Parts: sequence; C-alpha cells; structure tokens
Amino acid sequence: MLHKLKNFVTTGLLLAFFVYLIFGAVIFHALESPAEEKMRIEFWEFKRNLSRRWQNMLTQEELQGMLDLLFKAQSWGLHPDSTEEKSSRKRWGMDGALGFSGALLTTIGYGHFAPVTNAGKAFCVAYATLGIPLTALTVSAIAERMRNFSRFLAKKISEKRPQWNRQTVERSCNAGRVVVGMVVFFVIPTWMVHIVEDWTYGDSFYFVFITLSSVGFGDYVTGERIDREYSVNLVFYRVFILLWTGFGMAFLGMVFTMMSKALK
Amino acid sequence: MLHKLKNFVTTGLLLAFFVYLIFGAVIFHALESPAEEKMRIEFWEFKRNLSRRWQNMLTQEELQGMLDLLFKAQSWGLHPDSTEEKSSRKRWGMDGALGFSGALLTTIGYGHFAPVTNAGKAFCVAYATLGIPLTALTVSAIAERMRNFSRFLAKKISEKRPQWNRQTVERSCNAGRVVVGMVVFFVIPTWMVHIVEDWTYGDSFYFVFITLSSVGFGDYVTGERIDREYSVNLVFYRVFILLWTGFGMAFLGMVFTMMSKALK
Repeated sequence: MLHKLKNFVTTGLLLAFFVYLIFGAVIFHALESPAEEKMRIEFWEFKRNLSRRWQNMLTQEELQGMLDLLFKAQSWGLHPDSTEEKSSRKRWGMDGALGFSGALLTTIGYGHFAPVTNAGKAFCVAYATLGIPLTALTVSAIAERMRNFSRFLAKKISEKRPQWNRQTVERSCNAGRVVVGMVVFFVIPTWMVHIVEDWTYGDSFYFVFITLSSVGFGDYVTGERIDREYSVNLVFYRVFILLWTGFGMAFLGMVFTMMSKALK
Repeated sequence: MLHKLKNFVTTGLLLAFFVYLIFGAVIFHALESPAEEKMRIEFWEFKRNLSRRWQNMLTQEELQGMLDLLFKAQSWGLHPDSTEEKSSRKRWGMDGALGFSGALLTTIGYGHFAPVTNAGKAFCVAYATLGIPLTALTVSAIAERMRNFSRFLAKKISEKRPQWNRQTVERSCNAGRVVVGMVVFFVIPTWMVHIVEDWTYGDSFYFVFITLSSVGFGDYVTGERIDREYSVNLVFYRVFILLWTGFGMAFLGMVFTMMSKALK
C-alpha cells in the first residue's frame, strides 16, 4: 500500500517536472529567440559584405579558413584585442587552473573553458570522482555548522529569557538565519561584484544565483575581464570569491532543501 | 566535546579540500597550458599576417571591428559555415529552449549558451528558484525507487533461499545495483553517443561523466552538431538523453553519497 502510494507520488513528481520543464522552454524561447534572430542576420550580412568587398583577393575557401581559425581562437578564450604585446589572461595559468578545479569539484562547471587534451579529460574524470564526494562532505559540514549555530543561539536565548515561548524563539532563529544568509551571501556579494566587475546590479545578482545554485553557465565569471584593469588586489578578491562560493553553496543548498521539504 | 570534535573534523575537511584543489590545479596547468600557448601564438600570427596583407585596404580599427563582430557571432553559437541558405540549428528554438531548461533545473548548466536579455535572466532566476528544489525532489524519488528495488530483490531472494546468509544477499544486491547502474548509465550511453555524435569513446565517456555529475562544461553537448546529419530520429534521441540524464543523475548521486559516507 505504502509502496503504491510512493509510486504514485513519484509519477506525480515526474509529471509536475515535465510540465514545469515545457513551461520554462516556452518562456525562454519567447524571450531569447528574437535577440538570436537579430545576431544571425547581422552575421550573415557581414559575411556577404566581406566576400563582395574582397572577391578579387580572397577565395571562398580562404574566407572560410579565416573564419574557422578565428572561431577556434575565440573558443580558446582569446579576446579580439589580444596581441603578443597586449595579451589576455591565460586560462590555464595557475590562477585559471585553480578556478577550473574549484568549479569542477563544486559541480558548478562554468565551462567557459574545459580541458582539450585527452590526458586532461581523463584526469578530469578521475579527479572529480574522488573530489566531488569530498567537496560535498565539506560543504555539508559547513551547512551543519550553520544549522548548529542557529540552534545554539536559540538555546542561549531561551536560557536568558525562559518566559519566551521556546518554539517561537527557535523559529525566529531559523528565519533570522535565512535573512542573515540572504544579506551575507546574496546582497553583499552582488554589490561587491557590481563594483569590481562593473556589471549591472541585475547581472551581478544573476551571476551570484547561477554560481551558488551550482548551475554555472560561464557567461559571467569573476576575475576574467581583460578589457579593463581590476581596482582590487586580485589575490584577496579570489580568496573572497572562493570562500563565498563554498559557504554560499552550503547556505543556498540548505534553502533548497527547506523548499523541497515544503513542496513535499 | 562533541561540538569541538565536529569543528576539528570540519577544519580537517576544509584542509583536505584545499590541498586537493591545489593538487588538481597543478596537474591541469601542466596538462593544458602547452596547448593553450600554441593556440595563442597561432592567433597572433594570423592577426599580424592579416594586417600586413591588407594594410592598404583595411585600417586597424576596421580589422578590430571585424574581429569583434565575428567573436560575438561565435559566442552566439553561429558556425563559421553558417549562411542564410545553410543555417545552423537555432539555440532558442523550442528544442534548444527545452534542453536549456533541463540543464538549468538539474543544475548541469552546460552554458554553451545562456539568456542574454534582462527579462530572460530574471525569469531564469525565478524559474530555477522553484524548479531546482522540485527537480531535486524528483531525482531523489527516483533514487529511492532504485534503492527500494534492490531491497525488494534482496528480500525475495532471502525468502526463496532462506539457507543463504541474509546480509550477504543484501550486500550482493547492493553491489549488483552499482554494476548494473554502471552498465546502464555509463557503458551503454557512452557507446550510443559515440555512434550518434561520432565522438571518440574517450570523449563520449567524458561527456557522460561531466553530465551525470551535473558539472556540465558544455564543451560536449548532444544533438548540437551542425557539420553533419544525424542518422537517428532526433525526437527519440532527445527523449532518450532526457530520461538517461534524470535516472543517471539519481544513480551517480547515489554512488557519490556512498563514497562520501566511506570517506567519512
């Protein structure tokens, strides 16, 4: 009986998931498709103009070869401005490699770059197989510390003010934890990357959310701008981002778990 | 006392995590950095040749503007071959939008494309806030069904063969579940995408692992090749990939949880 009920719940969840998935696709398609169409038309016009202008000095094959190389360079993260004298930051320098390892272990996987050598890919799989469980354990230990702190606080308050309803105190501490977490892990970092990266507030918040949820599209990544100088000490900034990521993921994971339970 | 012990464990975990992180960065840097250097030099040489060849008809600003547009087109996923007549698949068509929604809800976040409009980004955050807990619930319900099935099997076998040691039967069923899961969710899909996408076995396995672990770099994504025709029915293929992702994530998540417990 219980078994059948659980199968029923699973089926219901699957159905709800698919409906929600299709709903999202319809909205994203409606919102993003016109911008895409515009870019496509612009690119094709550019290609037509290029072959017309240089038809006497550039064969169709040469043009294609040129585009192939440029697209490959871009997929390697080379900025169009980049020259030997004014080079962009290396992806696989030690700082970039650290960022990559961090994104891999937390399963954020920004993916604006990824290993291309076979050895790199093989190491990536082996490294993540052990590293992801280790990181999950670390993040959940942090989350437990956060939970314990709020329990500890509730206990202390109840001892000092025994006349207050204990359950109310506990609930207030839990709610307080969410509010403080929102400020520490969302509001302050949004404002910080808005200043440091010069993204809009909206884009900064989007980056914060996409990172902490471990989605990690890689359209916004901190410390990667090559068209401007950073006004902060980059080492401090990177350490701040790293700590924020770990603790923030623990916090948002906790909120998602609370929401999952509420949905149940 | 217990509190202090837990703090000690958390500190140890954090230390282990950082050591592991730096270890990974050193290896990735050593493996990938030479390939990057090669591409950078190739790109700069190409740029130098281009300005030398066309110095009389193309100003430095025009060249830069051209590169800017081409790089932008590439970041929009336009293939260098793409023309109005021979267009590449749209990212934000309904099938692409479905894939995007799925990658967002599962936090895989391939990120080879992401919303660019402000409305798209805002919807993305709102949609994921409700959707990620819903998906997590669905995936964990699937994982529970898998666990229950192996328990159910162990019970049936113990009933039929009461002379067998019950604990051994249970352990064998658990081990069997991992082996069957590896075949169903790793071996068979690796072979399938090897055939359909024409990736090497190594690349196919790398794709399978990076997807199911929810890292999702986006360097390999199924159904996105524009340089060749697909030999399979794309609707069936997409549904297969979607089901595989959901069930496979549940399976690998279960393995990672088992590993976390073992590390503990």
